[in-house]
Amino acid sequence: MMGMSDLSKMFNPKSIAVVGASRDKKKIGGILLKNLKESGFAGKVYPVNPHARKIDGLKVYSDVMSLPEVPDLVVVAIPAQFVNEVLKMVGEKGTRDVVVFSAGYKEIGEEGKKLEEELKEVCRQYQINLVGPNCLGFVNNMLPVNVTFGQVVKNKGNLRFISQSGAIAAAIFDWFAGNGLGFSEFVTLGNKAVVGENEVLDYWLEETRNKKQETRNKAEEIEKKLGWGWSDVYPVGMYLESIVEGRKFIELVKETSKKDPVFVLKPGKSKAAAKAMQSHTGAIAGEDAVLDAALKQAGAVRCVSLEEMFDLSRAFSWERAPKGPNVVVVSNAGGPAVISADAITEAGLKLAPIGRVIRKRLTEVLPRAASLVNPVDVLGDALAERYYQALDIVVASPKVDAVVVILTPQVMTQIEKTAMAVGEMSHKYGKPIMCSFMGGGHTERGEKILNRYRVPAFEYPERAIRALARMYEWNQWRQSESSEHNEVVSMTNNQAPITKQYQNSNDQYQNEAGQVVATATSEGRGVLDSKEAEEILKTVRIRVPESMVVETCEQAREFAGRVGYPVVLKMIGEKMLHKTEVGGVVTNIGSDGELGKKWEEMWKRKLQVTSDKLQEKTQGDIKFLVQKQVNRGVEVIVGVKRDANFGPVLMFGAGGTMAELIRDRNLWVLPIDKEETRRLIEGSKAYKLLNGFRGEEPYSLDELVELVEKLAGLAESSPEISDIEINPVIVNREGTWAVDGKVLLQISN
Amino acid sequence: MMGMSDLSKMFNPKSIAVVGASRDKKKIGGILLKNLKESGFAGKVYPVNPHARKIDGLKVYSDVMSLPEVPDLVVVAIPAQFVNEVLKMVGEKGTRDVVVFSAGYKEIGEEGKKLEEELKEVCRQYQINLVGPNCLGFVNNMLPVNVTFGQVVKNKGNLRFISQSGAIAAAIFDWFAGNGLGFSEFVTLGNKAVVGENEVLDYWLEETRNKKQETRNKAEEIEKKLGWGWSDVYPVGMYLESIVEGRKFIELVKETSKKDPVFVLKPGKSKAAAKAMQSHTGAIAGEDAVLDAALKQAGAVRCVSLEEMFDLSRAFSWERAPKGPNVVVVSNAGGPAVISADAITEAGLKLAPIGRVIRKRLTEVLPRAASLVNPVDVLGDALAERYYQALDIVVASPKVDAVVVILTPQVMTQIEKTAMAVGEMSHKYGKPIMCSFMGGGHTERGEKILNRYRVPAFEYPERAIRALARMYEWNQWRQSESSEHNEVVSMTNNQAPITKQYQNSNDQYQNEAGQVVATATSEGRGVLDSKEAEEILKTVRIRVPESMVVETCEQAREFAGRVGYPVVLKMIGEKMLHKTEVGGVVTNIGSDGELGKKWEEMWKRKLQVTSDKLQEKTQGDIKFLVQKQVNRGVEVIVGVKRDANFGPVLMFGAGGTMAELIRDRNLWVLPIDKEETRRLIEGSKAYKLLNGFRGEEPYSLDELVELVEKLAGLAESSPEISDIEINPVIVNREGTWAVDGKVLLQISN
Repeated sequence: MMGMSDLSKMFNPKSIAVVGASRDKKKIGGILLKNLKESGFAGKVYPVNPHARKIDGLKVYSDVMSLPEVPDLVVVAIPAQFVNEVLKMVGEKGTRDVVVFSAGYKEIGEEGKKLEEELKEVCRQYQINLVGPNCLGFVNNMLPVNVTFGQVVKNKGNLRFISQSGAIAAAIFDWFAGNGLGFSEFVTLGNKAVVGENEVLDYWLEETRNKKQETRNKAEEIEKKLGWGWSDVYPVGMYLESIVEGRKFIELVKETSKKDPVFVLKPGKSKAAAKAMQSHTGAIAGEDAVLDAALKQAGAVRCVSLEEMFDLSRAFSWERAPKGPNVVVVSNAGGPAVISADAITEAGLKLAPIGRVIRKRLTEVLPRAASLVNPVDVLGDALAERYYQALDIVVASPKVDAVVVILTPQVMTQIEKTAMAVGEMSHKYGKPIMCSFMGGGHTERGEKILNRYRVPAFEYPERAIRALARMYEWNQWRQSESSEHNEVVSMTNNQAPITKQYQNSNDQYQNEAGQVVATATSEGRGVLDSKEAEEILKTVRIRVPESMVVETCEQAREFAGRVGYPVVLKMIGEKMLHKTEVGGVVTNIGSDGELGKKWEEMWKRKLQVTSDKLQEKTQGDIKFLVQKQVNRGVEVIVGVKRDANFGPVLMFGAGGTMAELIRDRNLWVLPIDKEETRRLIEGSKAYKLLNGFRGEEPYSLDELVELVEKLAGLAESSPEISDIEINPVIVNREGTWAVDGKVLLQISN
Repeated sequence: MMGMSDLSKMFNPKSIAVVGASRDKKKIGGILLKNLKESGFAGKVYPVNPHARKIDGLKVYSDVMSLPEVPDLVVVAIPAQFVNEVLKMVGEKGTRDVVVFSAGYKEIGEEGKKLEEELKEVCRQYQINLVGPNCLGFVNNMLPVNVTFGQVVKNKGNLRFISQSGAIAAAIFDWFAGNGLGFSEFVTLGNKAVVGENEVLDYWLEETRNKKQETRNKAEEIEKKLGWGWSDVYPVGMYLESIVEGRKFIELVKETSKKDPVFVLKPGKSKAAAKAMQSHTGAIAGEDAVLDAALKQAGAVRCVSLEEMFDLSRAFSWERAPKGPNVVVVSNAGGPAVISADAITEAGLKLAPIGRVIRKRLTEVLPRAASLVNPVDVLGDALAERYYQALDIVVASPKVDAVVVILTPQVMTQIEKTAMAVGEMSHKYGKPIMCSFMGGGHTERGEKILNRYRVPAFEYPERAIRALARMYEWNQWRQSESSEHNEVVSMTNNQAPITKQYQNSNDQYQNEAGQVVATATSEGRGVLDSKEAEEILKTVRIRVPESMVVETCEQAREFAGRVGYPVVLKMIGEKMLHKTEVGGVVTNIGSDGELGKKWEEMWKRKLQVTSDKLQEKTQGDIKFLVQKQVNRGVEVIVGVKRDANFGPVLMFGAGGTMAELIRDRNLWVLPIDKEETRRLIEGSKAYKLLNGFRGEEPYSLDELVELVEKLAGLAESSPEISDIEINPVIVNREGTWAVDGKVLLQISN
C-alpha cells in the first residue's frame, strides 16, 4: 500500500476510459457502459476494444495510447493475464487513477499472487492509485457516476460505504433497492493491492473538511428537493475482512467519528472464520479482542452481525443519534411493549419516566383503559389519530430522548395512516423515532410509507431498540471525547510536567534497560528471567519488592535477616514462565527454620523438574530467587503486547490466581494518558476489588495509574521488547508492588 | 384455575353458539361468523342475538336457553357487564366449553378484577372450561374451525401455538401469511381466568397419545396431499406473559419435549418489563433466572427475542433438528461465508471438516478457484447446477449434520433455479438445510420458492445458524434425557436404597429440626442464628465444624483447648446475616493470647454495632460463637430458596468472598437426583476450582454431591423453611464442611 494519495480525481472523473468495453450487456464491460450511462455521468466515456468500432454510438479506441486525451480514470475489465500490460500503457499515457475489476489474483493462490505483485510493481512505478483488483468498482452518487458492473440503486442519500467484498456489496444494493435507502458514495475494495480503506477514509475526511464544498452543496440541493430537510451527518459503514495498517486506520476512524458515525462489520472472531478468510481473500485475522478495543477507542460501532450492519445503515442514515438514554415506547399492544421494556434495559437504555404533566395530557387523548406509564399502551383499537395525539405529547417532552413506535395489525388498525402520523411527528420534532410495524404481511404497506418519511422501521421492536442503543453509544463517545479534550487541556496546565518527567526518566534509564536486553540478546535468549525483568522495571522506577538471586540457603537467610521475614522463594530462569504450576513459588516463609526446610524441598523439585525430559518448558538454567514478601492486597495484571496490526497494546485486569477464573481483560491500543488509564482501570472487574469490596476501604489508585503509565511508556520506547507483563501487581495499604515480571524479546518470535 | 379438564370438545365442537352474533362484518360477532364459515367448519352454527331474526341465512335465537340443542361450544362476544348473566344461562343449558372475547376485566383495574372474580365463580359453579376473557379465541385447522375474530391464515401445518397476547397472535398471523407457514392449532389465552397454558398442553399431550388418532390421520392426509412428506413432529410455540402453576407447567413441558420441540418467549427479564406487565395484564414476573433454569430442565428452548420466536416457528415446523453439531456452509460469496464461520463457532456448533473423499468429489464439480474447505465457496459465477452438484456431495456425507446455503445476488446468479435445487436436495436427503438468500429485493423470488419446498430461509445467515443451534440444543436434551433415563434405571437397582436411607434419616431427625424451628417461631423470630442453622444441618448429617456459643473468653479458650487451634470467632444473632461486612468474623486465631486480644476487639465492635442506631440490621441479640477452623480449600455456596411459582429451587456456585465477584449461580428446580446434582456442579464456574485448578489435584466431589442432596431433601421436606443457605461450604483434603449456615422461616415473609 502506498502513502495517502489524493483520490478526488478517481471519484470525480471528468473522463473515463473503459478497457474491455463490450456491446454485450451481459458482459462486465457491457454492464459497466450501461451503468455509466444510466447513472447520468456527464463526462466523456471512451470505450477501448481492439475488435469494435462503435458501441452505443460511442467511438471505440483500439488501445489506451490512441485515446484523444489523458482520461481522468481508466476502468479495466479484461482477463487478469492481460491487465499488467494495459496498466503500463495507462501509466505511459499519464492517467493516475485506475479501477481493475478482473479476478484471478491472490485469491486463487500462488500463481495469482505473483500476478498481483507485478501489478503492484507497475502501480509503484507509475504512481497509479488502483482500486481492486477483484472488485466491483465504486459509485459516487454525488457526481453522479456509477463505475460498477453491479445492479446499483440510484437512490441518493447521505451514507458512505466501503465493502471489501463484492458479494456483500451486491446484497447491500439489493437490500437498498427494497428499502428505499440511498447512499452518496459506495466503494468496493477487492484485494486492496494499492488503495485500501485508509486511503478512502482519508479522502472522505478531506472532502468533509470542505475542500469539495461544491459537491456537498449539490448533495444538499438534492436532499432539499426531497423535502425532508438536510441531514448533517455522513455515516460511514464498512465491511472489512482485513485491516491493513491498524494504527493509521484507528486514527482516521477516530477523526471521522468526531463528526460522522462509523460502523464496521469485521468478521474473524473465531478461529474457524480466520481459516475461512485465509482461503478466501488472504486476509489474516489479528487478535480480535485488540480490534474490538481499538474500534471502541476510535468511537466506531462494531456490528455483531450482518443484520446489525443493515439496521445501522438505515438508522444512522435516517435518524439522529439520541442525546440521552431515555426512551418511550408507544404501542397498540401490551405483549410487544413488555418485550420492548426488556430490550431497552438489556441494551443499556432507560425507560423514560412519564411525569405528571405528560400523564395528565395523555389522559385527555387516550381512553381510560390505556396505560399511561411507559410503555404507553394506546390500546388495540387505536386509530391513526390516537397515535398522532399520543406521540405529539410524548415526543415533545424534553425528558424523552427517543421514541419507539410499535404497531400490531389488529382488525381496525389503520396501518398506512398511522405510518403517516409517525412520519409527521418525526419531521415536526426532529427527535429520533424508530418503528416496528409487526407482521410483515399487511404491515408492509405501512413500512413503505415510513421509508418515504425516512423513519427507520424494523421487523421486530428489539432490533429498533438495539439500533438506538448503538447510536447512543456513538453519541456517548463523542460527548466523552469532547469532555476529555477539555480535561486534557486543563491537565496540560497543571500536571503535564509530571508526565513529561516520566518521559525524561525513561530516557535517562533507557540505557540500563538496554544493557539487560543486550546481554540476553548476545546470549541468544528471547526470554528474560524474573530478576532481569525486575531490573528492567526498575529503570522506569516501578516499585518492586527487594529480592536477591542466591546460590545457598545461607545467602537466602542472610537476605531474610536483612529485609525481615516473611519471604518468598522462587525458582527463576528463562524457561520458568509458569512457575506456580510446577510448584516453583513458595510464599509465607516465616523463619530461618522454615526457610531451610523449604529450601531443601525446592532443591528436590528443581532436580525433579530438570530431569523430567517431557516437560520441555521447565528445563534450562534454573536459579533461586528470594524476595521480601509483600503484604496481602488486591492482585492485578498489567502487560503490554505488540500486536502485528495495532502495535503495542496494553492489558489490565484481575491478576494472580484470579486471572484465569475471572475473565477480566481490558485492552487499550497505546498511547494512553492518565485519564484514559484511570477509566481503563475503573472499567475492569478488578476495580470491584480495588474500590472497597465487601465493605473494605477503597485502595488508592494513584500509584497503580502511575505504574500502568510507566509500563506503557517503557513498552512504547523499547521496540526490542515484544511482550512485557507484571503478574501479580499487588495493591495493598503500603503501596503498589510489581511482584513478578515477564519479558519476551522480539528475537524470540 | 381448575384442575385438568378434557378440552377435546372445546377444540373439536360439533355445534357452536355465537352470543353477540352480528351481520355487521366489522363487528367482532360478525367477523367471527365469517371466520367460522370461511374456515370450512362443518358443524352447526347458532347465532344468538335478541335483535335479529336471520343472519347470512342462519336462524337467529334470542337467547341461549332457546337453542334447539345443547351446543358443544358457546362463544361470547358482548360487552363485559352482560357476560356473567349469559354464562349462568350457558351453565344451566348444559354447555361446558366457552370462549369469551370480551375485554374489560382485570386488565383495566379494580372494577374489572371484581367482574373477573364473579366470572370465575360462575365457571366453578357450572364446571365451565372458559378460554379468555380478553382473548382472540382459537383456531383448529385440523378439524377445521376458526373461532377467532382475527385475520387468520388458512395454511395448514404441524405447528401448535399458544399466545397469551392477542396482539402477538395478530402479528404472527400476518407474518405466517407472508411466509407460507401454517399451523394445526393456535390458542390465545387472554386473561387465563379458567383455562391456562397447562390445560392446553395437557390436552395436546393427550391428543398426541393417540386418543385422537382420527384427527392426526386427517392431518397426515392433508400433509400428504401437499406432497412434501409427513412431518413427524408437532412443535409447540408459546408466548406467555405469566406462568400460573410453574411446577405443573414444567412437568407438562418436559413430557411434551420428549417428542415435540417446545419453544417459549416469556418477557420479563428486566424490572422495567415486569412493571409494564403489571400494568398490562396483571402478570407478575417471577425471578427470571428460575424460569430460565426450569425451562432448560424441561428441554424447552427459551427464545431471546420475537425474531427468534418467529425464526424457530419456521425452523422447527419445516426442518428436523440436527443430530450432531457439524455444519457445512455452501456459499457463492466469501464474505458471508466468513461471517457464517464466526456465527457457527459462536453458537456452539462446529464447522464440519471436509474429508479427502468429499474434497476429491468436489474437485470434480467445482472450478479450480473454488474453496474446498468448509465454508465451501462455489464462487460468484455459480449457476444453480453448480449449487446442486456441490450440495449433492456435501449433504450426502454422513459426517455432516446440517447444511447452510448462502446466496448473494450477483449478475449471473439464478435465484429461482438455485432455490429449486436446494429444495430438491432437502427432500432427497431429509437432512436439515437452512438458507440465506441475502438482499431481499431480487432474492425474494427465491425465498418464495424455498417456502414452497419448506426449506427455512432467513434474511441473514447468522439467523439460520442460530436457529440450527437452538434446534440442536433440544436434540441434545432429548439425547441426555434418554441416556439419563437409562442411568436412573440402573441406579434404581444398585443405589436406590441409599437415597431412600437419607429419606428415612430425614424423617428420623425431622423432629430435632422441627424443635429448633418451633422455638424460633414461638419467639416470633423469622431468622435462625448460625448456631441454630448448624443444628438444623446436623439433623440431616451434614458435616459442620465443631463450635460452641460462649459467654466469656475463658469458655472460648477452654473450647479451643479441647478442639485445638486455630479457631474462628464470630458474632451471631438473628440480625447478623452479613457478619463479614461488619467485621463480625475473625479467622486464624492461633493461640490463647491471640484469642484474648481478638475477644476484646470483638467486644468493642459489638458495643459499637449495637449502639449504632442507623444500622438497623446489625442490632438485636448478639452472641459469640467460637468454631474450630477448617483448613483452606475451595469455598462454594449451596442454598435452597422457595420460589412463588416453581417451589423450592436449589442454587450452587462459587462461595465465600468469590461469590460476589464471579457470577456463578447455577439453579435447579427441585427435586434433584445424584446424577443431576453432579451435572449441576460440573456446569458451574466453581467446578474449575474443584477440578484441579492450576495444576492442583482435583478434589473429590462425592461428599459435596451428598451434601447438596441432603440439603435439597431437607428443604423439600420442611415447608416451614423459606430459605436455607450454606456459605461457605469448604471442600478441602479432609472432606466437605458446612462452615456457616443461614435459615429464614416462612413467617419472616
